Amino acid sequence: MSNQQLDQLRTELDDVNVELLNLISKRGDLVKRIGEVKEQQGMNRFDPVRERAMLNKISEKNEGPFEDSTVTQLFKEIFKASLELQEDDHRKALLV
Amino acid sequence: MSNQQLDQLRTELDDVNVELLNLISKRGDLVKRIGEVKEQQGMNRFDPVRERAMLNKISEKNEGPFEDSTVTQLFKEIFKASLELQEDDHRKALLV
Repeated sequence: MSNQQLDQLRTELDDVNVELLNLISKRGDLVKRIGEVKEQQGMNRFDPVRERAMLNKISEKNEGPFEDSTVTQLFKEIFKASLELQEDDHRKALLV
Repeated sequence: MSNQQLDQLRTELDDVNVELLNLISKRGDLVKRIGEVKEQQGMNRFDPVRERAMLNKISEKNEGPFEDSTVTQLFKEIFKASLELQEDDHRKALLV
């Protein structure tokens, strides 16, 4: 194992970070659009049943290396940030 | 806007969740391999300078919809979980 190998792994990690950022951003855009549809239909933005169903699907697909509990925790953070995006939009809509 | 459209957006969201899971898992595997290389070279696993550099790169690439501060917070959670994976491996190695 050499420093060269470490550098290569780090380059791969940097690439994965950017892919992750792109996907988290894409997810944020999708959640915003879902929030708009729900707003127009007078539906609640937060749906704990749907959130639980998403977490169950994610855990079912999880093959490691992270434990299900870790993956669930990470996704809960992502869900929370996404919901805050919807709330920002809602506040802006109220101010118009 | 119809329920059909909401269903379609939710299906897209489920797909993005699975892509995110796959990428987070790939990242976990990469970090484990980096941990092994560092272990063999007697290097510290946690490198705050490298972590800061990764966060800076990620913020530079961020084009929304999330604020830089939110993206940074999400990635810090992902980094923390990844570091815990390395620590688990280290403990197992010590027990062998």
